[in-house]
Amino acid sequence: MRKKLSRRQILTGLSGVAGVVATRPLLAADSAEQLSLEKIDQLLASTRQQGWAPSGLGQRSAFESPQRLPLYNIASGTPLQDLHGTITPADLHFERHHAGVPTLDPDMHELLIHGMVDKPLKFSLADLKRMPSVTRVCFIECSGNLNIRAGEKTTPQQLSGLTSQSEWTGVALSTLLNETGVKGKARWFLAEGADAAVLARSIPLAKGLDDAMIAYAQNGEAIRPEQGYPFRLLLPGWEGNTNVKWLRRLEVSDQPFMTREETSKYTDPLKSDKSRLFSVVMDARSIITSPTYPSVLSKGWTEIRGLAWSGHGKIVQVDVSVDGGRRWQKAALQGPVLSKAHTRFTLPWRWDGTGTELLSRAVDESGYIQPTRRQLIDSRGLGSLPYHLNCILGWQVRSDGQVLYAAEPWA
Amino acid sequence: MRKKLSRRQILTGLSGVAGVVATRPLLAADSAEQLSLEKIDQLLASTRQQGWAPSGLGQRSAFESPQRLPLYNIASGTPLQDLHGTITPADLHFERHHAGVPTLDPDMHELLIHGMVDKPLKFSLADLKRMPSVTRVCFIECSGNLNIRAGEKTTPQQLSGLTSQSEWTGVALSTLLNETGVKGKARWFLAEGADAAVLARSIPLAKGLDDAMIAYAQNGEAIRPEQGYPFRLLLPGWEGNTNVKWLRRLEVSDQPFMTREETSKYTDPLKSDKSRLFSVVMDARSIITSPTYPSVLSKGWTEIRGLAWSGHGKIVQVDVSVDGGRRWQKAALQGPVLSKAHTRFTLPWRWDGTGTELLSRAVDESGYIQPTRRQLIDSRGLGSLPYHLNCILGWQVRSDGQVLYAAEPWA
Repeated sequence: MRKKLSRRQILTGLSGVAGVVATRPLLAADSAEQLSLEKIDQLLASTRQQGWAPSGLGQRSAFESPQRLPLYNIASGTPLQDLHGTITPADLHFERHHAGVPTLDPDMHELLIHGMVDKPLKFSLADLKRMPSVTRVCFIECSGNLNIRAGEKTTPQQLSGLTSQSEWTGVALSTLLNETGVKGKARWFLAEGADAAVLARSIPLAKGLDDAMIAYAQNGEAIRPEQGYPFRLLLPGWEGNTNVKWLRRLEVSDQPFMTREETSKYTDPLKSDKSRLFSVVMDARSIITSPTYPSVLSKGWTEIRGLAWSGHGKIVQVDVSVDGGRRWQKAALQGPVLSKAHTRFTLPWRWDGTGTELLSRAVDESGYIQPTRRQLIDSRGLGSLPYHLNCILGWQVRSDGQVLYAAEPWA
Repeated sequence: MRKKLSRRQILTGLSGVAGVVATRPLLAADSAEQLSLEKIDQLLASTRQQGWAPSGLGQRSAFESPQRLPLYNIASGTPLQDLHGTITPADLHFERHHAGVPTLDPDMHELLIHGMVDKPLKFSLADLKRMPSVTRVCFIECSGNLNIRAGEKTTPQQLSGLTSQSEWTGVALSTLLNETGVKGKARWFLAEGADAAVLARSIPLAKGLDDAMIAYAQNGEAIRPEQGYPFRLLLPGWEGNTNVKWLRRLEVSDQPFMTREETSKYTDPLKSDKSRLFSVVMDARSIITSPTYPSVLSKGWTEIRGLAWSGHGKIVQVDVSVDGGRRWQKAALQGPVLSKAHTRFTLPWRWDGTGTELLSRAVDESGYIQPTRRQLIDSRGLGSLPYHLNCILGWQVRSDGQVLYAAEPWA
């Protein structure tokens, strides 16, 4: 929440955040710096020549080149450490697929809804775009979003880059099910994609009637191919693979279909002799995005920043520790705080030059608190690796200012 | 607001929005359509070949090519009719400049704050990024955002495309003024840009201490060159030119500087013998974005969509008329409704095939109601053309389904 300073506070210096930028001496504007004529020319160059004409599509500055980080052949991570706010640029949204990104013709591709419905129907993209629309901002996260082999020299992108946020627009699935009608015995539906993996998941009908959406727009324009063009299933707060991309078919049924992606994969063996299936909701999580590896800090003020989110609803609190977990302070949350959405947290911190560890801990509206690694292992065992690893993460600050991931081996 | 259907409602068909897609008969899934082997191959092609591998930067689908529309050499408009939700993709954000887009080196460019301050200071981009950050979603609009020569065959982009919305991140100007301190007599500051126009505006200090921001990030990443890279002044709700791009200098003073852009330009001659200077706040406005030219409607259900916004705060209501202004209905507003931000409105409408006119009218939290063209001219006269033309706009629906802008000559 923005701290608003009154004129009086500024004039009398009582704002309480004076000296925030004491990190390095700012060049006083009236210091006796001699500028060479060459430097003056450089500084004035932009005022002496016509700039670029208007264009049909903008470009990034040549001085900025954010990139996703491809991971084997199956994913690419968002550069969390380079981003601000809560929206992920569409071309930096993480990817995860099992057989590459298909090219689908929006004039040929259709969504079929059939099975235990009154009236099976097919919908084209044009049909979906004409129907009553809904828009919401929410995150998507891969359930395997923690690099369990990460060493010290690991960026947030490399550690946990398989999560991004967009403003999604589409048609509520309940609207479509209202067109087809649903038979009384129905309890589940299969969602199937048109990629070469033909990824399929069984979804409880209750979620389909709740906040499920068939999304065709991402950050204001057509959804991107890597995110499912021409449309995908969007299940706010649920693990990434259930948000089936390149959606082609929904088959309504009275039972789950027990596909490969919910039996062989994406189930969590527990400490007991049982496995948890359909562990679909992404539990509360937070990650510091700055300062992290490869930042180098100077003594003095900086702002600790990060993202927190929960598939169960809103984040209500994020605690940050600057002393390895001994004491915790509440970070500020950037409003408006949305349900099932990346929430930006910040905490001003004055580093005194001694080595320490930075941690963040999220609390969501259900009261759930992001667990420590020890709590996670004790409660679930190690069999559920590498899914749903939402434990607290640490960043070491060395006395020379280098920041490193506080890596701990998992097995 | 999303209408949530219960299982009971769907099963008993009592949702009340049945038949929304009665516009054309959907292909029933069990109809006796014979598919040729060739068509089957086409439909299955995406499941039989590996798709694209993960990439560092995503691309739009080849089937989607949204574009800005350059206007002479001084602007380009956002394709409002092709967009959804409220976020404008960064490379489609409108442009407006007076001498082209400069290329600035973030390692050389600095922001100087001087004048009636205790301590003049210069800030680099790195300094600004290290300071306490704030993030907000808000619109920017050019004060001249209405094409007064538009004829019938005019898209929203051509009519009114000089408005866009981003999630902006930066440092609050009040934080910077706290570093410099401000002298007791100060009441204004000059904001000056580093482009070849060296555009400069005088801003009341009160706005600088309120919600003014030095913005360096746009939709999560570095601000774009066309929007002011490496940083700009952001004054939520104020006319576009005051949000000085490529910001290089703020000079604090006790009086306005009376620059060209606030005397020769951007002042509004009134019906009296007086002119209004510093007409900085963008009044409430709305525009239908669909259906508009060049849509062609079919009889039956469609969804009327548009955007509404106000520089004075939140939109509280948008009324839509489907009969040329005789009767008005409240449209649904997509939440969360934010202050000084584009708000998406929607209204389901069943077209009966007869010619008519569609209108939208915004109301903001101050109680201000978007005026008719007649009201605007009667109260302000025509001398203020072409600035701040925020009147109600109409779209003609012909009986053959063609939609055209309901153009009216201004002079």
